[in-house]
Amino acid sequence: MSPLSSADPALIDDLVDANHILGMQGVLDAFGHVSVRHDRSPAHFLLARNMAPAQVCREDIVSFELDGTPVDAGDRRVYLERFIHGAIYRARPDVMAVVHSHSPAVVPFTVSRRERLRPVCHMSGFLGGGAPVFEIRDVAGDGTDLLVRDDRLGRALAQVLGPSHCVLMRGHGSTTVGPSLKLAVYRAVYAEVNARIQSQALQLGDPQYLSAEEAQAAMASTEGQVDRPWALWKAAARAIR
Amino acid sequence: MSPLSSADPALIDDLVDANHILGMQGVLDAFGHVSVRHDRSPAHFLLARNMAPAQVCREDIVSFELDGTPVDAGDRRVYLERFIHGAIYRARPDVMAVVHSHSPAVVPFTVSRRERLRPVCHMSGFLGGGAPVFEIRDVAGDGTDLLVRDDRLGRALAQVLGPSHCVLMRGHGSTTVGPSLKLAVYRAVYAEVNARIQSQALQLGDPQYLSAEEAQAAMASTEGQVDRPWALWKAAARAIR
Amino acid sequence: MSPLSSADPALIDDLVDANHILGMQGVLDAFGHVSVRHDRSPAHFLLARNMAPAQVCREDIVSFELDGTPVDAGDRRVYLERFIHGAIYRARPDVMAVVHSHSPAVVPFTVSRRERLRPVCHMSGFLGGGAPVFEIRDVAGDGTDLLVRDDRLGRALAQVLGPSHCVLMRGHGSTTVGPSLKLAVYRAVYAEVNARIQSQALQLGDPQYLSAEEAQAAMASTEGQVDRPWALWKAAARAIR
Amino acid sequence: MSPLSSADPALIDDLVDANHILGMQGVLDAFGHVSVRHDRSPAHFLLARNMAPAQVCREDIVSFELDGTPVDAGDRRVYLERFIHGAIYRARPDVMAVVHSHSPAVVPFTVSRRERLRPVCHMSGFLGGGAPVFEIRDVAGDGTDLLVRDDRLGRALAQVLGPSHCVLMRGHGSTTVGPSLKLAVYRAVYAEVNARIQSQALQLGDPQYLSAEEAQAAMASTEGQVDRPWALWKAAARAIR
Repeated sequence: MSPLSSADPALIDDLVDANHILGMQGVLDAFGHVSVRHDRSPAHFLLARNMAPAQVCREDIVSFELDGTPVDAGDRRVYLERFIHGAIYRARPDVMAVVHSHSPAVVPFTVSRRERLRPVCHMSGFLGGGAPVFEIRDVAGDGTDLLVRDDRLGRALAQVLGPSHCVLMRGHGSTTVGPSLKLAVYRAVYAEVNARIQSQALQLGDPQYLSAEEAQAAMASTEGQVDRPWALWKAAARAIR
Repeated sequence: MSPLSSADPALIDDLVDANHILGMQGVLDAFGHVSVRHDRSPAHFLLARNMAPAQVCREDIVSFELDGTPVDAGDRRVYLERFIHGAIYRARPDVMAVVHSHSPAVVPFTVSRRERLRPVCHMSGFLGGGAPVFEIRDVAGDGTDLLVRDDRLGRALAQVLGPSHCVLMRGHGSTTVGPSLKLAVYRAVYAEVNARIQSQALQLGDPQYLSAEEAQAAMASTEGQVDRPWALWKAAARAIR
Repeated sequence: MSPLSSADPALIDDLVDANHILGMQGVLDAFGHVSVRHDRSPAHFLLARNMAPAQVCREDIVSFELDGTPVDAGDRRVYLERFIHGAIYRARPDVMAVVHSHSPAVVPFTVSRRERLRPVCHMSGFLGGGAPVFEIRDVAGDGTDLLVRDDRLGRALAQVLGPSHCVLMRGHGSTTVGPSLKLAVYRAVYAEVNARIQSQALQLGDPQYLSAEEAQAAMASTEGQVDRPWALWKAAARAIR
Repeated sequence: MSPLSSADPALIDDLVDANHILGMQGVLDAFGHVSVRHDRSPAHFLLARNMAPAQVCREDIVSFELDGTPVDAGDRRVYLERFIHGAIYRARPDVMAVVHSHSPAVVPFTVSRRERLRPVCHMSGFLGGGAPVFEIRDVAGDGTDLLVRDDRLGRALAQVLGPSHCVLMRGHGSTTVGPSLKLAVYRAVYAEVNARIQSQALQLGDPQYLSAEEAQAAMASTEGQVDRPWALWKAAARAIR
């Protein structure tokens, strides 16, 4: 039995919705991707074939092994950066879903050598003490295309992510993880919202960030409400499909 | 007779419209809420159950006592921060409606230690001499989840609000009040508009704010026109419902 | 025969379209207004009754004398600031249409004491050497509601406008004029576009503005193309009506 | 046989789609234009008649000689700046499509004397070492309308473009080229995206740009994926037509 056919159909529906939600929220455009760990086979994950997230249908979902090998893609192209997902699932058993994005307010934080992405409000407590930054030059030198295009780079990224929930990628984007698909989507959306707010706050001057304790407590509280944005976003995404 | 069934049905319709308007205007997303004081029982207020404002229907409206106790929620979840509303209605008999929001241009002003939210144009005269800021650490220490999750915090917030029409909440959002539902909605929208304009004006440099006298006069004039935006916003919100 | 019934019906259609276009382009929200001089009676102008521009229909158009007296409003409310229009039509026989707006990128330029609104690109040559700023305190002292609510203030505004095509109003908005309705609308839209671009250019640093000669030449060239945006905007506004 | 009738009908369809895509993405408004070199006659190019790109239909496409002479426009107006296209096609045999735009985040980079448009992320590797800037005063003096309104100015622009993929035009806009229509459109969209991100990154402070090697490698990788955004954008543009 293929991993795809043994997966919970509701999980595949959620993954399709997640693709559409992230497109509609402006977190993903034609690029970037979202995956979920297989619910019955933790050594597999589900991810769309190579296409724009907003256009993904059930039939476009493919299953992968954790080293990035597609199981049932057939002759369809797959994402160059699927290794991001597999390497994180291997390194982090607690992670059930991964979003890789180039959301526009986050990218400036990947290149600034002066400011880090840090939580400015309770909605983004998951940013903790600030998101770490993966500099691909540290592992592959200057001259790459900046893509995490093999498992070695995936492992290096997972190492910089460490126990965090979000890792920035210099000159590229970010990767956000969660203990459920809904939470990974929520965090990807609010990483972008936080980036916009933090940029403005820095211009106003001298922002007060959440303390580590506040970030932890706020994360627990707000993330317990995750069904609320998910219901709103799913309805909105389905209305324009 | 329950408070809900004794309320003016038109008031409940307006409250549903207010939820949709604030969602459509980007003042509320999946979070935040708007309430109105009961028209016949000033010791009660009406507020939706725990859900995204844009999705609220008549059936989702619940009545509450001023200490935040839900009267007719049944087994439905209610908002964690309903205490904001009740505490302000107790402290401010003139207040008939309350909006609690995380609108994105206002949040930076809650964390900047350099600039305050002040009225830059006649539409936001209600900001008077500038919005006060509630620092939850002053009453509950460092380490909270930043939420006004009990009546004691609600009372502390109401105290910082004082006689103002808008109070900022550090690392969290803002709460706006009015002598009618329409005016509370109007002020929540224009607090956000003012924040965007003030941020830009500060970047251009050395903004001239409204004087206290101008703010007072402008508030009286523009708020006498409140039926105009309400009619526009209601029509727009109903068109996409 | 009333001025309204003697006006060219096509002019009234254009005025309704202008209201919708300016609403859709974000130049007007629930506030602000656009007028056109009567095509056969230059001592009258046409303007909607007191309502949101996006909702204006043919039946809502009223005619006014140049001192701001409504001719055929009946018992309908009219705009408090109709005096802006009348005073400019009196002072400037070349002006055939007037837009008064609070468009959000322009307002910061009305309050900054450091930067003026100046043309940064060929589309906004009509800004010439920079837009003058009307400070209501100069004529009515500190403590007004900032509105041009009588003919004396209207005349003072027209005086500051002088021979320009756009005048800023401190803490309030702007007024843009043109030799035709289409050009007044075009200039109101591109005053806002220029403000956004100039704000960004000032942040990048040391912008090169158009010289006076460039502004004049660019104005002539681009404004000869005004039917192109008008056709686009009209089609878009009618599509959502 | 006229150049228009000998062109591949699919190419004309793509050109119509390109017009709509660039309108919908906010790269073109009522102004700006996109052309493609004739697929069978490299000494001709195809471009719409003088109109807003979002409204272009198959019947609006006209063919031109490389000196800007319209072949089959009849009595229809053509764009004043068609010389941009012809001059570049003459100077650059590798170029198959040209987009001329005033996209709003790019224009500030055309006037700032402090910052250049440079690639901050992998999506915009085509910006290489930074986009050159065409200063019309260098060839036509101060006092022009800033438009490239004859072949002499077109040749001067093509010279500043040199071997690059994007040239900025001071106080005006930019021109982006590609070896295919899809890539010219892609680059015009991501020049705008890069400009927004770079502006924010400069405000955060001290951005790390892509090195020349990274820009080259990233361009090759991401542009090999160009069918993905094209499919998404085409579907979105057709959905609202």
